[in-house]
Amino acid sequence: MSILVMKFGGTSVATPDRIRRAAKRVGVEVAKGHDVIVIVSAMAGKTNELVGWVRETSPLYDAREYDAVVSSGENVTAGLMALTLQEMDIPARSWQGWQVPLKTSSAHGAARIEEIPTENILGRFAQGMKVAVVAGFQGISPEGRITTLGRGGSDTTAVAFAAAFGAVRCDIYTDVDGVYTTDPRITKKARKLDRIAFEEMLELASLGAKVLQTRSVELAMRYKVRLRVLSSFEEMDDAAGTLVCDEEDIVESNVVAGVAFSRDEAKMTLISVADRPGIAAAIFGPLAQAGVNVDMIVQNISEDGRTDMTFSCPVEEVPRAEKAMSEAKARGEINYHDLVADTEVCKVSVVGIGMRSHAGVAAQMFAALKSENINIKVITTSEIKISVLIDRKYLELAVQALHDAFGLEKAPAG
Amino acid sequence: MSILVMKFGGTSVATPDRIRRAAKRVGVEVAKGHDVIVIVSAMAGKTNELVGWVRETSPLYDAREYDAVVSSGENVTAGLMALTLQEMDIPARSWQGWQVPLKTSSAHGAARIEEIPTENILGRFAQGMKVAVVAGFQGISPEGRITTLGRGGSDTTAVAFAAAFGAVRCDIYTDVDGVYTTDPRITKKARKLDRIAFEEMLELASLGAKVLQTRSVELAMRYKVRLRVLSSFEEMDDAAGTLVCDEEDIVESNVVAGVAFSRDEAKMTLISVADRPGIAAAIFGPLAQAGVNVDMIVQNISEDGRTDMTFSCPVEEVPRAEKAMSEAKARGEINYHDLVADTEVCKVSVVGIGMRSHAGVAAQMFAALKSENINIKVITTSEIKISVLIDRKYLELAVQALHDAFGLEKAPAG
Repeated sequence: MSILVMKFGGTSVATPDRIRRAAKRVGVEVAKGHDVIVIVSAMAGKTNELVGWVRETSPLYDAREYDAVVSSGENVTAGLMALTLQEMDIPARSWQGWQVPLKTSSAHGAARIEEIPTENILGRFAQGMKVAVVAGFQGISPEGRITTLGRGGSDTTAVAFAAAFGAVRCDIYTDVDGVYTTDPRITKKARKLDRIAFEEMLELASLGAKVLQTRSVELAMRYKVRLRVLSSFEEMDDAAGTLVCDEEDIVESNVVAGVAFSRDEAKMTLISVADRPGIAAAIFGPLAQAGVNVDMIVQNISEDGRTDMTFSCPVEEVPRAEKAMSEAKARGEINYHDLVADTEVCKVSVVGIGMRSHAGVAAQMFAALKSENINIKVITTSEIKISVLIDRKYLELAVQALHDAFGLEKAPAG
Repeated sequence: MSILVMKFGGTSVATPDRIRRAAKRVGVEVAKGHDVIVIVSAMAGKTNELVGWVRETSPLYDAREYDAVVSSGENVTAGLMALTLQEMDIPARSWQGWQVPLKTSSAHGAARIEEIPTENILGRFAQGMKVAVVAGFQGISPEGRITTLGRGGSDTTAVAFAAAFGAVRCDIYTDVDGVYTTDPRITKKARKLDRIAFEEMLELASLGAKVLQTRSVELAMRYKVRLRVLSSFEEMDDAAGTLVCDEEDIVESNVVAGVAFSRDEAKMTLISVADRPGIAAAIFGPLAQAGVNVDMIVQNISEDGRTDMTFSCPVEEVPRAEKAMSEAKARGEINYHDLVADTEVCKVSVVGIGMRSHAGVAAQMFAALKSENINIKVITTSEIKISVLIDRKYLELAVQALHDAFGLEKAPAG
């Protein structure tokens, strides 16, 4: 018995007709001999409707009641999917989170999955059931209340089921047909990747490629779940979509897998800060408390005991950052001459596990940007990623130049 | 600690704004010192939307999946009501059927309530919670699947909670302001009753007065739950609505409490049936099997070993009745000369516990109809009810004449 997990997002189950089309894909996998666990999202628009009612009712809502209300959308889809499969003579039934039971922490609205017992569903598979349809995004807390996993929680549910049941693969059906070397709206040369390593996908996901939630990729990496992203709206094909997998499963790859970007960044510089031990904590502590998501940090060379400290954060968090800094200054915790915010920057990154073994990627990146006369404002690097802050007006130009420079339109020699 | 049960129907919770208005009524009762159990229906229209999707998906649906889908509407309202109460600083939380747990039979779509454990909710009241909001219409089967109680199931849920918790009263908030002596659309003289006995309400409910489901009245009568029907859209007032209660709690009442009617009836007569022992079983057995709801039955005087057998049923069941009879005839189980269907009749009834001790009600009823030259086709009586079949065109005339004849526009001398 081989178990396959298939997850369908909101647009893939938006109407009874689309649910039927999704169910046909499930039928194809059942015909191949798989026992299938289907994870469903709410019908497109339904979760927003429910969230809207909650917010209208109570701006500072009780997260437990929020979860009880918002989780109902997935329950509807799960029942309708089970009925659709039954109409196709495929033995199926629905499970709500508490029926599995998918056990989570008590962190309502952003609960962590703690345990997925497999006996119930395996028992039904043993009795001849072919498809278990599970409402995604939800679970039950130790107190017996309904929890939700936060936005993108259905992807996480799917990966967690695949891990718990030792599934051969976890197919995430969505409205894009895979992971691309970069956003096809920026350059038509963007190419769909057949395979991508977990680490690369993680960097791309957190850098703003919105195909998969970071959390589900982390979970897949930890439990070695082969994750495939593919479209509900294309022909079915065993080679469709993009397989997110272990590095070892990728025979050949380009040094750089893709170019990611984040459009609305801000660069903030504290001018002339006293350079003393603990100054970084004195600056970034208050920023974290104010909910500012600091990304890059650069400290300039110190002169006469004073230095400039630069950091980046999303544009919309600039007012919060300014307030936190001026309050810290007023409390005497830090001292600076001026705080300069440049809100017209963006971040562009190249990502690829090949960088680990190939030198010169940074130099090649900087040369490509220089040839377009794009000035680099901040640089950060990790083992498999190089990111730069540049003026926002150069975003498209930079992405296109980097895509060309690393030859991403061509598949790697396999 | 006195517990009050308040039930709000779909139109009373149709929007977040209406939920707020309902919550204010709950707040008034909490301020009086009650611990309140609120039972909610789905927002108006939501259950129909869900049922529509199920039917579109699967005409011969699996009732277990139907229940899983359709029950979600009440869960949404329960959460929103709890949030609304919290916004008013009233400690409240929601319970879904399986969380109580409201235990039912496995008869999906029409489950019977079997047990309502009170510990969980009483425990929370003891800790200071003021309102338990419970999703109506649903429960959990011995197999752990979600069940629904059938249409009107939220009324039944409310009465069952009132019985289980020994509530001082069960208030059913709906879109009418009480039980009337007859339908106010038929005569403007119709008067709202302050009180009505369970038995009378049962007769009125089953005769077509659509204020309360028969099942909830039966349950209230069995467990002596004081049941009040009142409008969500009128000013609050301790004397509002109609109290459905034990006979002993009604000090003075008219002999006749109300005039009920059922518009679309048919009168069917089997002409010249062999009058032998067992003939009634041979006729009504096949009708019951065919799902025909036979109401009145009249057997004429026998002549030469043959008789005419007359019965009434809803008009839409006539084709089914005709088929059942001709098949029974073909099988040789019954023998009759002809089957005559009169599909242009209606049923009008007078109901009142006072009839038990007052003679002459039937005579007074027949005289009133005679004075309008209305011919009576069939008569049946019970201890507290007299019903007649008449031509449908006389329905309004008959109801008005009877309402006048029994002086129902006037309140009883108290």
